[in-house]
Amino acid sequence: MSKLRVGIIGAGRIGAVHAETASFRLPESQVLSIFDVNRPAAEAVAARCGIPAVANSAAEILADPRIDAVLICSSTDTHAGLITLTAQAGKHIFCEKPIAHSLPQIDAALAAANTAGVKLQIGFNRRFDSNFARVRQAILSGEIGTARLLHIISRDPAPPPLSYIKVSGGMFMDMTIHDFDMARFLIGDEVEEIYTAGAVMVDPAIGEAGDLDTAIITLRFRNGVIGTIENSRQAAYGYDQRVEVFGSEGKISTANNFPNQAEVSTGSNIRRDLPFNFFMDRYTDSYVSELRSFVNAILDNQPTEVEGVDGRIPVVMAMAARKSYDEGRPVRLSEIEN
Amino acid sequence: MSKLRVGIIGAGRIGAVHAETASFRLPESQVLSIFDVNRPAAEAVAARCGIPAVANSAAEILADPRIDAVLICSSTDTHAGLITLTAQAGKHIFCEKPIAHSLPQIDAALAAANTAGVKLQIGFNRRFDSNFARVRQAILSGEIGTARLLHIISRDPAPPPLSYIKVSGGMFMDMTIHDFDMARFLIGDEVEEIYTAGAVMVDPAIGEAGDLDTAIITLRFRNGVIGTIENSRQAAYGYDQRVEVFGSEGKISTANNFPNQAEVSTGSNIRRDLPFNFFMDRYTDSYVSELRSFVNAILDNQPTEVEGVDGRIPVVMAMAARKSYDEGRPVRLSEIEN
Amino acid sequence: MSKLRVGIIGAGRIGAVHAETASFRLPESQVLSIFDVNRPAAEAVAARCGIPAVANSAAEILADPRIDAVLICSSTDTHAGLITLTAQAGKHIFCEKPIAHSLPQIDAALAAANTAGVKLQIGFNRRFDSNFARVRQAILSGEIGTARLLHIISRDPAPPPLSYIKVSGGMFMDMTIHDFDMARFLIGDEVEEIYTAGAVMVDPAIGEAGDLDTAIITLRFRNGVIGTIENSRQAAYGYDQRVEVFGSEGKISTANNFPNQAEVSTGSNIRRDLPFNFFMDRYTDSYVSELRSFVNAILDNQPTEVEGVDGRIPVVMAMAARKSYDEGRPVRLSEIEN
Amino acid sequence: MSKLRVGIIGAGRIGAVHAETASFRLPESQVLSIFDVNRPAAEAVAARCGIPAVANSAAEILADPRIDAVLICSSTDTHAGLITLTAQAGKHIFCEKPIAHSLPQIDAALAAANTAGVKLQIGFNRRFDSNFARVRQAILSGEIGTARLLHIISRDPAPPPLSYIKVSGGMFMDMTIHDFDMARFLIGDEVEEIYTAGAVMVDPAIGEAGDLDTAIITLRFRNGVIGTIENSRQAAYGYDQRVEVFGSEGKISTANNFPNQAEVSTGSNIRRDLPFNFFMDRYTDSYVSELRSFVNAILDNQPTEVEGVDGRIPVVMAMAARKSYDEGRPVRLSEIEN
Repeated sequence: MSKLRVGIIGAGRIGAVHAETASFRLPESQVLSIFDVNRPAAEAVAARCGIPAVANSAAEILADPRIDAVLICSSTDTHAGLITLTAQAGKHIFCEKPIAHSLPQIDAALAAANTAGVKLQIGFNRRFDSNFARVRQAILSGEIGTARLLHIISRDPAPPPLSYIKVSGGMFMDMTIHDFDMARFLIGDEVEEIYTAGAVMVDPAIGEAGDLDTAIITLRFRNGVIGTIENSRQAAYGYDQRVEVFGSEGKISTANNFPNQAEVSTGSNIRRDLPFNFFMDRYTDSYVSELRSFVNAILDNQPTEVEGVDGRIPVVMAMAARKSYDEGRPVRLSEIEN
Repeated sequence: MSKLRVGIIGAGRIGAVHAETASFRLPESQVLSIFDVNRPAAEAVAARCGIPAVANSAAEILADPRIDAVLICSSTDTHAGLITLTAQAGKHIFCEKPIAHSLPQIDAALAAANTAGVKLQIGFNRRFDSNFARVRQAILSGEIGTARLLHIISRDPAPPPLSYIKVSGGMFMDMTIHDFDMARFLIGDEVEEIYTAGAVMVDPAIGEAGDLDTAIITLRFRNGVIGTIENSRQAAYGYDQRVEVFGSEGKISTANNFPNQAEVSTGSNIRRDLPFNFFMDRYTDSYVSELRSFVNAILDNQPTEVEGVDGRIPVVMAMAARKSYDEGRPVRLSEIEN
Repeated sequence: MSKLRVGIIGAGRIGAVHAETASFRLPESQVLSIFDVNRPAAEAVAARCGIPAVANSAAEILADPRIDAVLICSSTDTHAGLITLTAQAGKHIFCEKPIAHSLPQIDAALAAANTAGVKLQIGFNRRFDSNFARVRQAILSGEIGTARLLHIISRDPAPPPLSYIKVSGGMFMDMTIHDFDMARFLIGDEVEEIYTAGAVMVDPAIGEAGDLDTAIITLRFRNGVIGTIENSRQAAYGYDQRVEVFGSEGKISTANNFPNQAEVSTGSNIRRDLPFNFFMDRYTDSYVSELRSFVNAILDNQPTEVEGVDGRIPVVMAMAARKSYDEGRPVRLSEIEN
Repeated sequence: MSKLRVGIIGAGRIGAVHAETASFRLPESQVLSIFDVNRPAAEAVAARCGIPAVANSAAEILADPRIDAVLICSSTDTHAGLITLTAQAGKHIFCEKPIAHSLPQIDAALAAANTAGVKLQIGFNRRFDSNFARVRQAILSGEIGTARLLHIISRDPAPPPLSYIKVSGGMFMDMTIHDFDMARFLIGDEVEEIYTAGAVMVDPAIGEAGDLDTAIITLRFRNGVIGTIENSRQAAYGYDQRVEVFGSEGKISTANNFPNQAEVSTGSNIRRDLPFNFFMDRYTDSYVSELRSFVNAILDNQPTEVEGVDGRIPVVMAMAARKSYDEGRPVRLSEIEN
């Protein structure tokens, strides 16, 4: 297999990104077909990216014998089922996060992929961002000694529509899940206990919908590291995504990415323009890198860099975070499993 | 009273700093006498600062009718008693932190000062640091909207000697107490509940002495703000003292202070020298500002900027932080009082 | 014309970049054919970018009636001749800098383009870099008042091979020419006088070849602005491309672009990784933007953003800079024309 | 001599600074007497600093046998004469810059000091600023290899009153003289040739007074280094004092000093407060360091760090810069001497 032949299910925002990457940016991949329940959306992406076919159903893609791998970019409620079906069709799977909001569904999907012996990668693209990858490298190389404390700042520019929040599984499942993955990725170990201090500060309607919009989550890792995640659904100054890891020999901190590196001094102050305000701008390169990683894992028959279990554990963490918030006490992850 | 006449009790490191400030840097003050149980220490400071008298006892200073105010810079275990005696002598009081490790002792001292009608200022010098003062100003002025999240990073370059740790009252009482005060100062409100995730990571001997050396402490304020304090008794790169406050309209973050603003680029990297490594270098100006504030409060007959109660509450917070650490659960400050 | 049909002459490093951009990144363009004197190079680019034809000669591209515009990416000595031929073939022209090393050749090429009424854009891609574009915007908008002083820092990571230096026309014609363009672009006015303080500091062999490798060039603009360009053929820490413009109401300065935004603190120093070391990495986005600008200028029948005369004037400036270096005195550009 | 006994001539702004330093900040010095033609000014400084005597004349200070050294802080036109008289009185001399506006006057003063065998230090305080000292150290230690290019940015917040400009000797003699000294200090070598591109941009009245207010000055050093000085009498954003030295193995750049290290992010931009706006604030510590250096040079019988010739050469450079401006050509310093 010299070129990976790909089918795409879902032609929304993220499906379009992966379609463009797989068509144009990765010489090792080729998109044969795309499907979306909204057919005009699939047609538009196909036209722009030169994808030769628009499928009439997901099943049509799964049945196509030329297709080696499927990118699942449809809505979250379809992920687990499609993983199972794709695995049963013997095709490798790239699936957007989260796999599902329920552990039994996730476990069934992972079992199906495992049984079929296909590769599965979960779309935690931030691991491939050059800033966070640099932090991980510092920890792996011992550049800052042994990690002791972790601080993740993760703030969105604005909350999603209330209609989305109601089906999102809540902030922890929808937004913090990236940070839970980041915490595991950076520290390279598992979290045992979570304590959530959360609130509704951005919009009372979010609270009325049963969710929260602001939180500081304390994480205790098995290896002793203590970490915090600072979340807000809204940041006036834009998309704020930074981490700091403090270790026995030093620390490493990342700053945001900016559209330009210009600084203006006037009689009022010294200033620069705001950081990228949209995850597509901030994480552009990481989407390319994660898909390259997936394509190469298959072509080289190596494990994927973000495996099925990496999609499961953050869901457990999200559940523990919520339970801690509800009960006002630290919650061990083992409580969720039992 | 055009010039405040001052006596100093304690000629150690911090006593020497205040002696120099009151003698040289503040035209409005004049040091008449200094006492230390270690007489040569007092004599050395007197010689260097031109202080005309070295007292034979604290009582001699308290009995000196020319003296308007006393700076209490002796060891912590003497603070509460000296506050009471100084108040009874009718003199104004500047006292280093903490007042004491026990609430009844603190309450007795504050009552004495109150009864005597003298002014009392507690030595939380960091409030007078230009960085933190700027943060407070941003919150007061509404520059970042309503505060929502607070993050305080406070790491010492190296732990104090074990002998000191054993009598210090523990990390929360000795080191974090500054951060507890900073949290109250910046947010301008009181903390209701504290959750501590702590550990011994720097030196097992600290753990054997019953203390911890690393912690992340979550604070819940009455007004809804959630904050964290990150503490380590040791930072490889020096003294690390930063805060970030996130609000509805923006955020404000401070960086450390550095001995120079030079940046070197070579074939290896782009680098700058480490920040100030010693609290005397980092907070030089704040010691002058806090004493100026005290002197002016007396000369102008205004309330001091850091009153007796500001010395008491951080002790309660330290107790709650310890209790939370011991019991593995969030602790309300009201539990400490009862 | 809804999609611009493009032919490319030259499949070297920059030709490959434009081929990829025109094939993949710009939906409004389509590459029909590519030619290179090194046929395998053209074939490789065609294969990678899905270009349907590899031409046997430049003439074949110029004769292709389907082709609307030609990207001239061949060696400098062919630029002027190809501009003339392409213009005579009635096709629009994008040509890499410099047009030529001789003014009569340049003038002939510009006259041909003018006579033919085709559009011509010169490849000064840095105008499209987001940093420099932001500086230009600050000047245009009055954000820093009226410009007074300009400082351009432009240092290459390492000198090109000596064989290239010998045919490059010299540092001013090959490297500084970008800075001459940048100076005109940022200030929006013409330079009247140039003074060069130059030297051979990097490699004596460069001096023996009749060139220099280090220079500070002072520019006097008609509107009174004074500027300097700092050049070095070698910078130990990588590619260094910054500007500062000082105006009556403020200043604007740009920093380099970096592969990541991480900062590491250790017991030695606080450091970050080096900036991008290669112009392809630093200016990736600007190559896309300049070609988009060219394509849109043609499709919308608007003037190009970098016209023929913008390719001529920096050559005059390079000549003046060299004359100033040779004669040790300020040289007016009018001396070069006469 | 265990404590240096000092007299001060001149109780203006800078005289007051040195009086305070010598009285309070340097345990090794003691001020015995101060004189100013404006007696109330001298009395005010004496009262504030505890100086026991206010002299009736400069001669009275020079005749005082207890005084070891004299700080000459009076107006520039008196410097050379007072150096001569102080030297003849056998006292060591600290003199503010510039020594004089005429070389014969300077030479006479230096000869007098030399004949008398007294120490002489010129008040180029910026050498003692921690930023510039760090740059010098980088060059001395080889941290950036061999210096190749130097860029000094030196902009005042606002021009001095026109009345002062008229007697100041012009911008080069009054303001750039600090930068001329900085260039020599940093590079550790002498300038051979100067080229000035100057203009009147800030205020036409400055031009009418025969001076200029904006300049870029190119310096060629004997050792081959090329440098530029960017000057403006006015910067909207405050006092701007930075340098960058580029060497064979790297570069070092300094930033300005700021009153705080806070950064504010809002919906508009990311900003910090302006740098120190006044030389007294920016250079506070350097004034202490330069006087400490002077006092120690005498007490230890070592050469001063800024000797008489260091006061003469920048005057020659200022003359060359003006001649270059007047004649529109590079001027060699040797032309000034002949």
